[in-house]
Formats: sequence, structure tokens, C-alpha cells
Amino acid sequence: MDDTRILLAHGNGGRLMRELIADIFARHLGNPLLDTDADAVTLPILDGEPMLTTDGFTVQPLEFPGGNLGSLAVHGVVNDLAVAGADPRYLTLSALIEEGLEVDVLDRLIASFAEAARESGVAVVAGDTKVVRRGEGGGLYLSVAGLGVKRAQAKLAIESIAAGDVVLVSGPVGDHGIAVMLAREQFGLSGELRSDSASVLPLTRAVRDLPGLKFMRDPTRGGLATVAHEIARASGHSVALDQNTVPLRPEVVSVCDMLGYDPYFLACEGRVVAVADASSGGDILSRWRALPEGRAASIIGRIESGSGRVILETGLGGRRVLDELEDDPLPRIC
Amino acid sequence: MDDTRILLAHGNGGRLMRELIADIFARHLGNPLLDTDADAVTLPILDGEPMLTTDGFTVQPLEFPGGNLGSLAVHGVVNDLAVAGADPRYLTLSALIEEGLEVDVLDRLIASFAEAARESGVAVVAGDTKVVRRGEGGGLYLSVAGLGVKRAQAKLAIESIAAGDVVLVSGPVGDHGIAVMLAREQFGLSGELRSDSASVLPLTRAVRDLPGLKFMRDPTRGGLATVAHEIARASGHSVALDQNTVPLRPEVVSVCDMLGYDPYFLACEGRVVAVADASSGGDILSRWRALPEGRAASIIGRIESGSGRVILETGLGGRRVLDELEDDPLPRIC
Repeated sequence: MDDTRILLAHGNGGRLMRELIADIFARHLGNPLLDTDADAVTLPILDGEPMLTTDGFTVQPLEFPGGNLGSLAVHGVVNDLAVAGADPRYLTLSALIEEGLEVDVLDRLIASFAEAARESGVAVVAGDTKVVRRGEGGGLYLSVAGLGVKRAQAKLAIESIAAGDVVLVSGPVGDHGIAVMLAREQFGLSGELRSDSASVLPLTRAVRDLPGLKFMRDPTRGGLATVAHEIARASGHSVALDQNTVPLRPEVVSVCDMLGYDPYFLACEGRVVAVADASSGGDILSRWRALPEGRAASIIGRIESGSGRVILETGLGGRRVLDELEDDPLPRIC
Repeated sequence: MDDTRILLAHGNGGRLMRELIADIFARHLGNPLLDTDADAVTLPILDGEPMLTTDGFTVQPLEFPGGNLGSLAVHGVVNDLAVAGADPRYLTLSALIEEGLEVDVLDRLIASFAEAARESGVAVVAGDTKVVRRGEGGGLYLSVAGLGVKRAQAKLAIESIAAGDVVLVSGPVGDHGIAVMLAREQFGLSGELRSDSASVLPLTRAVRDLPGLKFMRDPTRGGLATVAHEIARASGHSVALDQNTVPLRPEVVSVCDMLGYDPYFLACEGRVVAVADASSGGDILSRWRALPEGRAASIIGRIESGSGRVILETGLGGRRVLDELEDDPLPRIC
């Protein structure tokens, strides 16, 4: 029996499953609240309004420059709570493992999951593993739920966005999308570019007490342009982005030019888009720039009364409409 | 474009994904707390200790007599909270969809998910969808997290089980395992047998105030024998099951005899195994038998001081050891 790879019997509820959970999941994720023998864990009473979220992670390849499926899954859920104004507290982890996955790979990914959780100050308190047959999975899929406590002073609500508000981003966009694409090696390109996968908690904590802050979102699947469309649709206003001020790494620009991708639609995994009234924009910008995660932060646009469009103002004074995403340029990006 | 099947673009964050979420997920699951445009939802303050759990669901086929992946996913998570002594309140849903899945099938499964949630009194408050390429999924996988509030009076703890305690089960075992296996049609058998997939909340609510109740578990993957092994391992005692008193449907016995399965290792999805001190066994039995879900409840064994074995007492006074599960007899059973 090949004991370096996952077998169907690792999912059967019996001895091999118990050993897999002990040797990998419990070993890395262990904390006083996690009880891998229990159906459900009891948590301390929360000191505020609970906030709940979930996300599934299918990134391919499972490991890429700047991160892997494990760290990405933590950052994705932590960031969903962070941009909603919460402090994340607890995570649950559902792992769907494909028969034949190397046990060493699983071990590395769950170790990264555990490390990212520790860095973000969250405890993994419940989990489940299932094994599916070869050809019925993509190596490993992780689904994570996050429970946090509301902390934002301001009421963050996309509907409160009004004409005249400003749009900010905390750093360069598209790094994750391009880093993962290059890691697939299907283009014969390689580079120094790393995914931006990271917790955005320092960024959201730095600004969430500002009364002029109206909305935050992490631009993952569909990128900055898709967040702009969500804002336009929910507010009924138009979003005008200034191409000159949207931070982009030169490597991202080159790859996009070469392969015909639009960087505004590429996923980020460690950035925040914020909308605030015009008088608060400078405050947010200076608080973000004071952080290592926000040095390249920028005011990138404004809300215009109009017909719910997303407009890119180009360098030469031109304006082009950014349509909503139709095709999927990069499946399994997150 | 074939609009009857899921495309990769249904997972891209753009228009098709938005429409899929509106047309299927939000339409069936809608409730005042669910906000499909939000990163995380804010919940009312909980009136007690939070209990959290998660589970992944990969059953194949996606629809089977007595249930489907959608209803099974709700019952699985509701039951994990129920047997831990909680009232379930909120669910999150992460859906991993394989390219090519029929939209009608997805619609039926999510409709069943929603119906089962309503029946169990839980609200689905957060969700996420991802689409993976053909050959990288099994049609549809669902991962669900459940948040509940602790309600049990007794401290339910597997470690508190002692020699002399009695073991009960709320109904016949193995129905789910056999119903799903027959639905695969690979054996050319068919029958009237239906999965027992159901919420066990009425059963757990009926007995969770009894001080003599020590432990409850729903015998899913690995079945009754695997729960018995968990009890034996955690308590250090032996579990003796009486073959004459374990309820089994005749159809389950026939199929097991024919195909060489052991019904004690087959999954249930609507049963509760309970352990209680001997003086409380009768109370639990009469409360369960008064419910439609518990009419066939039975005291099926007892805890013996001993070496942590699971023993099946056969009809003729013999005793055979039930070993821990090694192979996986039925992958993707839940």
C-alpha cells in the first residue's frame, strides 16, 4: 500500500481517517477549543454582534509564488470579515481531498493554513474531511466559514455611497491573478511576481473608526472592475476610475499587454477597495500609507451621479466603459 | 451557448455568476438576514453559548430515494449541532460546482437545501459558489457550517461514559448506506428502501434535559460500529452491542447478506446513538418511542469495563469483535 498518497479509506470514518486527522489536521491546527472528536464545539460567549461568512477555495496550482491554497483560504475568509468591519475570531475548515493527493502536499497546505490562522489571530475550531475518487476532485478543495465580532464604528453599507465620494485602493491590483497564471507554466513565462495573498486586517482596523468611511471590499474574483460594478449597481451611480492613479506593478502590465488580459479584472487577495466621502479620503490615504501593507495606497476614482456605469479615464483624457465580466479569463484563481 | 448547464463563467464573479446566485441561491434561500451582496452578515446577539460545526457533502448520486445532496447537507450539519445539545440557528453554504452540471439539477438540490433548512428552523445567512472544470469535481459538492446555541442541561461528554451505562439507538441502522448504494444501480438491484436522511432535532430535544444522558452522536460515515469505537476509545471501556436488539430493516439485512456488507458499518443520516446511565435508559426509550422519528428506538447494548473493544453479542450467545473500519466500503456515501 502506497502510504505517501491519500486513499479512499482516508475518508471512511475509520482508522486511516482518524490517523490522518490526528497526524495532519489536529497536529497543525490544534488549540484548546478544537476537539476533533466532537460533533460541534462550544465557544465562549461573543462580546458583540456576531458576523458570519463562508468561502470556497479551488486555486490551481495548489502552491504558487507568495502563497498556497492553505494560506489563501485563511486570508480569503479573514478578509471577508475584515472588510465588513469585523474582527475575525473562529474558523471552520471543510477539506475535500482527491484520492491520490500526496500526503506531503496536504501536510504543507494545512501547515500554511494553520500559520496564516495564527498570524490573523483566529482559532480553527471545527473541521471535516471527505475523500473523493480520482478524477472527481482537483487535488484539494477547502471551504472555510468565519465567525467574527462586529467592530466598525461606521455603518458600512454599499447603499450609502453617494455622488462625490472617493474610491481608494490599498495597493497594486492584479498580482494574485498574474502570479497564479504564471505558476501554471502554460505560457512559458516566469517572473519574480508573487501573489499579494495576505490578511487585510491591519488595513481595515486602521480606518474602520472613520465616520466618513462608507464601504470596503477585497477585490478578489473579477478584480477591481467587478467591485466597481457592484458599487455602481447598488448605488445607482457611476464609478469613474483614473487609469493614472490605479497602482499596477510593471510585471503585471507587461504580462497583461502580452497576453491580452485586462488588469482591472484580475484577482487580488490582499487589497482593500474603500469608498468614503471626499473629506475622509485623505485620512484613509495617510493611515494606509503609514502601514507596510498600504505604502502604495492611492485615491483611484470617484462616484459620479449617472447611470450605473464603470468608466476608466485614460491617460489622454479619454473615457472608456469597463463592461461587466462575461467569460472567465482564469478559472480556479481562488 | 448551452444555457441548461453550468459554465466556467458562472464562477467568474461577473454577470453569469450574479444571475446564477439570484436565480437559484437567493431565490430559494432568501431570508431577511441573507445578503448575497455582502462579504459577511451581521447576526443578532446570541442568547447563549455559541456552538459551531462544519461538514462537507459529496454523496453520489446527487439524488437518491429519500433525499438528495441538498437535504442531506442540511440534515448533516443540523444533526451535528443537535447531538451536541444545541439548537441550530444559522447555516453557511459553500457550493463547488462542476462545469457541465445541469442547471435544473442544481436548482432542485438548492430548493431541497432551502426546504430542509426551513423545516429545521435554521436560516442560511452566507454563501459562496465556485465552478471547477469538467473532470475536477463530482457534479456538486456542498460544505456547510452551522452556528447554534447550547441548550443541553446535562454536560454531554464522551469521557463521562462509565461501565454499566446503556446504549440506545433511535431507529433502524444502515438505511442511508443501502439506499444510496442501490441508487447507484451498479448491482442491478432496486427496492423500496429510502434513506433515513432527516433532522434529529425532535429526538435530541426530547431527551437533552435528562441528567442521566451522557452522550449523543449521529452514526453517519462508518455507522453504528464506528460510533461504538469512538465511545470505546474515549472512555477506555468496551461497548457490547446485542445483535437481537439493534433495529434493522429486512431490506437492509437482505442486501447486506447478498453483497457481504456489514450493516453495523453503514451510514445513517437520521438516527441518534445515545449513552446514558442505566436508570435513565427507560426514560429515553419511552420519550423517543412517543415520537414518530423514534418509534423503533431500542436499548441496544451496554458499556462494560474492559479493554476498549466493540463486541457484538450474537443471537446464540456468542460474541464477536467488531474491528475498526479499514477499507472504504462505500465512498461518497455522504
